[in-house]
Amino acid sequence: MAPSPQQFASDNYAGICPEAWSAMARANDGSCVAYGEDEWTSEAADAFRQLFAIDCDVFFVFNGTAANSLALASLCQSFHSVICAASAHVETDECGAPEFFSNGSKLLVAPPGTSKLTPEMIRALATSRSDIHFPKARVVTITQPTETGLVYSLDEIRAIAALCRELELKLHMDGARFAHACASLGCAPAEMTWQAGVDVLCFGGTKNGMAVGEAVIFFDRTLAADFDYRCKQAGQLASKMRFLSAPWIGLLQTGAWLRNAEHGNACAARLAEAVGAIEGVELLFPVEANSVFIRAPEPVLAELRARGWRFYTFIGGGARFMFAWDAEPQRVEQLVADIRAAARLHVAVA
Amino acid sequence: MAPSPQQFASDNYAGICPEAWSAMARANDGSCVAYGEDEWTSEAADAFRQLFAIDCDVFFVFNGTAANSLALASLCQSFHSVICAASAHVETDECGAPEFFSNGSKLLVAPPGTSKLTPEMIRALATSRSDIHFPKARVVTITQPTETGLVYSLDEIRAIAALCRELELKLHMDGARFAHACASLGCAPAEMTWQAGVDVLCFGGTKNGMAVGEAVIFFDRTLAADFDYRCKQAGQLASKMRFLSAPWIGLLQTGAWLRNAEHGNACAARLAEAVGAIEGVELLFPVEANSVFIRAPEPVLAELRARGWRFYTFIGGGARFMFAWDAEPQRVEQLVADIRAAARLHVAVA
Amino acid sequence: MAPSPQQFASDNYAGICPEAWSAMARANDGSCVAYGEDEWTSEAADAFRQLFAIDCDVFFVFNGTAANSLALASLCQSFHSVICAASAHVETDECGAPEFFSNGSKLLVAPPGTSKLTPEMIRALATSRSDIHFPKARVVTITQPTETGLVYSLDEIRAIAALCRELELKLHMDGARFAHACASLGCAPAEMTWQAGVDVLCFGGTKNGMAVGEAVIFFDRTLAADFDYRCKQAGQLASKMRFLSAPWIGLLQTGAWLRNAEHGNACAARLAEAVGAIEGVELLFPVEANSVFIRAPEPVLAELRARGWRFYTFIGGGARFMFAWDAEPQRVEQLVADIRAAARLHVAVA
Amino acid sequence: MAPSPQQFASDNYAGICPEAWSAMARANDGSCVAYGEDEWTSEAADAFRQLFAIDCDVFFVFNGTAANSLALASLCQSFHSVICAASAHVETDECGAPEFFSNGSKLLVAPPGTSKLTPEMIRALATSRSDIHFPKARVVTITQPTETGLVYSLDEIRAIAALCRELELKLHMDGARFAHACASLGCAPAEMTWQAGVDVLCFGGTKNGMAVGEAVIFFDRTLAADFDYRCKQAGQLASKMRFLSAPWIGLLQTGAWLRNAEHGNACAARLAEAVGAIEGVELLFPVEANSVFIRAPEPVLAELRARGWRFYTFIGGGARFMFAWDAEPQRVEQLVADIRAAARLHVAVA
Repeated sequence: MAPSPQQFASDNYAGICPEAWSAMARANDGSCVAYGEDEWTSEAADAFRQLFAIDCDVFFVFNGTAANSLALASLCQSFHSVICAASAHVETDECGAPEFFSNGSKLLVAPPGTSKLTPEMIRALATSRSDIHFPKARVVTITQPTETGLVYSLDEIRAIAALCRELELKLHMDGARFAHACASLGCAPAEMTWQAGVDVLCFGGTKNGMAVGEAVIFFDRTLAADFDYRCKQAGQLASKMRFLSAPWIGLLQTGAWLRNAEHGNACAARLAEAVGAIEGVELLFPVEANSVFIRAPEPVLAELRARGWRFYTFIGGGARFMFAWDAEPQRVEQLVADIRAAARLHVAVA
Repeated sequence: MAPSPQQFASDNYAGICPEAWSAMARANDGSCVAYGEDEWTSEAADAFRQLFAIDCDVFFVFNGTAANSLALASLCQSFHSVICAASAHVETDECGAPEFFSNGSKLLVAPPGTSKLTPEMIRALATSRSDIHFPKARVVTITQPTETGLVYSLDEIRAIAALCRELELKLHMDGARFAHACASLGCAPAEMTWQAGVDVLCFGGTKNGMAVGEAVIFFDRTLAADFDYRCKQAGQLASKMRFLSAPWIGLLQTGAWLRNAEHGNACAARLAEAVGAIEGVELLFPVEANSVFIRAPEPVLAELRARGWRFYTFIGGGARFMFAWDAEPQRVEQLVADIRAAARLHVAVA
Repeated sequence: MAPSPQQFASDNYAGICPEAWSAMARANDGSCVAYGEDEWTSEAADAFRQLFAIDCDVFFVFNGTAANSLALASLCQSFHSVICAASAHVETDECGAPEFFSNGSKLLVAPPGTSKLTPEMIRALATSRSDIHFPKARVVTITQPTETGLVYSLDEIRAIAALCRELELKLHMDGARFAHACASLGCAPAEMTWQAGVDVLCFGGTKNGMAVGEAVIFFDRTLAADFDYRCKQAGQLASKMRFLSAPWIGLLQTGAWLRNAEHGNACAARLAEAVGAIEGVELLFPVEANSVFIRAPEPVLAELRARGWRFYTFIGGGARFMFAWDAEPQRVEQLVADIRAAARLHVAVA
Repeated sequence: MAPSPQQFASDNYAGICPEAWSAMARANDGSCVAYGEDEWTSEAADAFRQLFAIDCDVFFVFNGTAANSLALASLCQSFHSVICAASAHVETDECGAPEFFSNGSKLLVAPPGTSKLTPEMIRALATSRSDIHFPKARVVTITQPTETGLVYSLDEIRAIAALCRELELKLHMDGARFAHACASLGCAPAEMTWQAGVDVLCFGGTKNGMAVGEAVIFFDRTLAADFDYRCKQAGQLASKMRFLSAPWIGLLQTGAWLRNAEHGNACAARLAEAVGAIEGVELLFPVEANSVFIRAPEPVLAELRARGWRFYTFIGGGARFMFAWDAEPQRVEQLVADIRAAARLHVAVA
């Protein structure tokens, strides 16, 4: 099948980046022990330990839904609850997976519209009830960057972590696009995670250039007790594990993990900059990572669709564009040009 | 890392076969819609419909544990039970995954030593209790070929299916090595499944030459209602689905699915034939697919280990060898020669 | 222990009414088969069939949390969702039980402040998403009367049921205080349930004068398939079932079920009427059943506490009073007098 | 309904004993706070602390299935396993409740025929597997007395507990008839539980003379963390808790708990003694508590049925009789006489 023109509806539309691909190719040479007892897997885990500068426990699972749900389930019991933002992927786009894996943990969701949690919101949710008729808060999950493309600053994370310690809550980070946050802040992975007080991180591989796979990283290794059994029981142990782990070697050892993210962020920044200069179109959120949410009149969006663009839309006239490692600069420019043209055609001059 | 000499401890030790690999490479060209809305996925599903000569529902998941557990969970409620053989993978090697995905369904296990279920065993298990203090039997699962390398004949499957209809049980087939059974019986996939009365099949991709992935196939499409939601919630929906589905196109359209299996079976047959002529070593089971279980005195097994062979052992002095698509004939001969030599050294001549 | 002066903080504070008690005493005569195979249980089920004028399936469980959760779990799978009001007990006071019993079904909650669902709210929630990344709506649950003491009219229920049929949703009624709604509307139980389109009802016994026990009533008997197994597995099958079922005979055959509710409602009406005439105190909701929510300045509430009254409070200065079968009229008058006095003392005259 | 002649098919056939009944009557005087915040509940918990001579945590739930399942679920995760005897009620008669409450924990069942576990069986089950493809053993559950009426000696319990400590397993005791074991051994409750190494006990109330209710007792209080939330979420928190707790006061403070058990045991001993002298009828198990299992030719059993006796039968020609607090001595003698007569009629003299 001939590929269609590149779309920016999702960073899941991208394929496998060259570094991940060639690592898979290398790993495909000959026979190899299964279920993660192989050298590729231990080397990949070591690469994470080096990246995070800590002796953490690393597990490789198939996708982000499972990574988040398994991590959260390991931090709480079914009668506990998990605090999250209104836009959190665990709440909006995982079809009840956190509730399923945990056998019933409730998500306590911050007010509509929130995508970044604050200590105030967390305190309000965690302390709103203290009777046994309502699940006891035990975990806070933040998405870094958020589903709306915002990046928590190190200080924001530290403040949340401090509150978590005060309230005896664990802190989980959904890092489906963790690399993009690192690229955005220009900080070391350690600074944004365990040094800031994060207990468990789900580090996304799929949106970072892999075919499949996420890493669950326990900085507090006591929390990882029997997590390997948990993965196995939940259908998240790959038999030919090398194909889940070797791509990480390719990404981490070559620096592609960060370059890929920087490229996505740069494309988003380019679009954001251009949109800022187009009348009748505006950004819904500051652009801090690899996604751009624009507000535009429906005729503008229709025009974009007519010109062949695919994108997710939101109530009130929003469109989302996301940029992966493979975003072609000229295709980004084409999008800019089409938005400009659509706006010119359909935005009434006051 | 340089690959070590080939081992036959498991068919999970094999890598990705060329047909699957090149399909992945083709699928990696450009951007593509996610979550299974892509053309690769619909083409792969169509390839299955053609292979099975029926308009079945096809779902692609990550591994066999999930495929089996999701299929079983869709066929019963938590207070129902699943009948299986004592050697069934769902009972012995999935860490309670069927119980987890179904939220508590009990496995009713046939007597120790069984690897093939018979109508008599099924009737005994299904009718042993009829009070509400014990889970109600609802599903029968058979592994084809069994974990011990036996292949149910078409008549055996038909007899089980007839009993299932009589007792209002659904029939699930764990086909982790389904292709090997087809190759062994020389029958059409349809004959061994829906034409014989199988309701749901888990068709293994990993042991058939893929990196990752199994197909869950509902011949009775009404049973597949909302199964896509079930997969999503259980962390089994791949975002970049094309990399799970395209390899099936490679396998099915080129005939590699069957050739790979035939090759594995032939290697097993070669080893079995040779072992039959070695004094002091004997086959534990008839060799009907790609696995060979041999009984040998411990010094013989120790000698094999000393010569660098890896294998799983069993109580009473057994060793298992399994052959994948990549088994090198000269390496099989080397194994034969080493078994012969080990037996000569360590088996006392009467 | 000598009983303290009667409190109206909850209708769970009441004991066992005479009719339920004497039925238990009668049932306690001699030995009796267990697990619901006894005559008391079949007679109690028949009494429900007569009350509802339909051949329904009736199950007796221990409490309302279990009744609701088991009923909901029988109507949906883990990847489905349940639509409820913001004040719904299943959402606010069951510690995640619906999620637990269903293994992860999500509650889709109407906007804050809602206690009665409307067809508009249901449509909005049921149709907000139609992709597999979000649980599919399958059930609507309404509490009759609501947790705020409002009663759905027959027309309101019929309108909701009509929408449920349109959207292929099942309709569950949490009738923890079902009798109070019947007493309020003066209608037959059948009119408010199956004739209006309700599929499953949880009929509360505890708040109606029993020690323990609720009835789950399936008007569509096909929905009750294997529900007895579900109860057993979930720890909701009483061995000495007669003590759960016989009290229902006492309540239903003597008419106490309705008299008890009428009494509670009358006490609430009396308090509501009196409060309407007290300056500075007002009703938060129309009083349609046995609960009264009043808004009063904090000093008034403090004064009430100082005078020995216990009650639940709400953000913004509310207090709840609930009246059971045992509410003593002179004690209600005492409460009225104390509210009047407290208001006189602490409400500034404008 | 007039009571039928007393039957000994189950000790669940008995009603509420006078001491429990009068405690309920006393508790029914006036209004009382709900959900276990009442004085009856704290007094009942204190009575347990006094009985066991330790500051344990006590929870009151509705039935034995829930008590066992909740206790086991609190001791392990879904990917762990529970070791039990073949006759264990959790395995044979709880419809998969342990798997349901724990979200998938597997029961590792000792060989068929076992009703008492031994350290050897436990070691074999706990160490048979140590890979992540099989659930990790975490708990041992023993039933005291067993479902076959055998009583573990203190030394037997201590030996099991010592092995549990060695293997890092928790020890749970299903004490559905705990009182009967105390009566049988003549030991203090403390000796048979925490002093012997038991971590958690489910103390049966129903079979001890109550209408409904069991107590879950954590001797190691750290294991009880958030167990109140677990009970609530699982539908096991009674709103009118006093009716679940007060009967315990009646049983424990009057000594009825032990007298009731002694009476049941004595009736069983009487039957056993008589059966020992009847030709053609024999005991299947030593009679150490309140149950008697006899083996008799089918015509003898048929004759008993014809004379109006109800009993559970077992494969191979067994019948079970169980004696509760209410067993009438003359009715026991009638059973003895009928067995004698039936044997005389139907047992061929050699």
